[in-house]
Amino acid sequence: MEVEVKFRVDFEGMRKKIESLGASFIREELQEDVYFSLPHPRLLRVRKLKNLGKAFLTYKEIKDPGRNEEFDELEVEVSDFETTLEILKRLGFKEDVVVRKRRLVYRLGDVTFELNDVEGLGGFLDIEVISDDVGRAKDKIWEIVKKLGLGEEDVEPRLYQELIREASGT
Amino acid sequence: MEVEVKFRVDFEGMRKKIESLGASFIREELQEDVYFSLPHPRLLRVRKLKNLGKAFLTYKEIKDPGRNEEFDELEVEVSDFETTLEILKRLGFKEDVVVRKRRLVYRLGDVTFELNDVEGLGGFLDIEVISDDVGRAKDKIWEIVKKLGLGEEDVEPRLYQELIREASGT
Repeated sequence: MEVEVKFRVDFEGMRKKIESLGASFIREELQEDVYFSLPHPRLLRVRKLKNLGKAFLTYKEIKDPGRNEEFDELEVEVSDFETTLEILKRLGFKEDVVVRKRRLVYRLGDVTFELNDVEGLGGFLDIEVISDDVGRAKDKIWEIVKKLGLGEEDVEPRLYQELIREASGT
Repeated sequence: MEVEVKFRVDFEGMRKKIESLGASFIREELQEDVYFSLPHPRLLRVRKLKNLGKAFLTYKEIKDPGRNEEFDELEVEVSDFETTLEILKRLGFKEDVVVRKRRLVYRLGDVTFELNDVEGLGGFLDIEVISDDVGRAKDKIWEIVKKLGLGEEDVEPRLYQELIREASGT
């Protein structure tokens, strides 16, 4: 299970705080995510990492719809972004929204920090732990959240897919 | 466009004939193909090359249903066979049949020979040319077919998916 909490943050300010925690910088990703329309609470996405020349096909089931913090995720790397999009379209899936972001990935133990600058939306921090013990994973996330000076009021429960859809008024 | 004609053959006898034409041996593949149920004339397949540690997601549209010699094919390599199967199942696709074969691939110019020993069905030879000029591709295929001592009576128009489905009585 992927357990993840999303916060609205100031990108540059949060970057300094994460680094001062002693987290290791893993990589930078320039992401282009194409989401397809799928009945809630399921997600279907093809992601291109433009700077790394990689692409991924991802299917997610949200286990706590509304809160959107617990995901059952299945992902494979695919050899071609455009061909994967075309296969899904030919299978009848409709493109919903495109989310573009610059992401800095950091790690501290088994906690992953995904600091995002999302085109049209601004700065977000996803703090993620992969674990089947959801309670323990959330405790671990919130322990770190406090050190970053964030609180419940900074949580953004909506998915990027939803935020972009709302921002584009569709 | 993938233009391909399938023949019923004796595996070992045909192997010698292909080699005597001067075709180059490219590789051996131990394939496990999972086909999903999709409305005709469309095919959805996940292929595992067991001996090469690779997997592929393939979508095909048959452009000449019934003859099954002209295919519009979209294919990507995927990083994991089982996860790709699971994603398709979660998306609602139903597994239809599994086709297992040993394939020897040969090439002569732009003609590809796929000599197959299909589990439960026996020997088959697919002769393939990738070209948007279907007429010219078929002329090229039939020129070689004659050299191999094959004729119209050896053509098998049915898909492997159909042959296995018939053989298993489902």
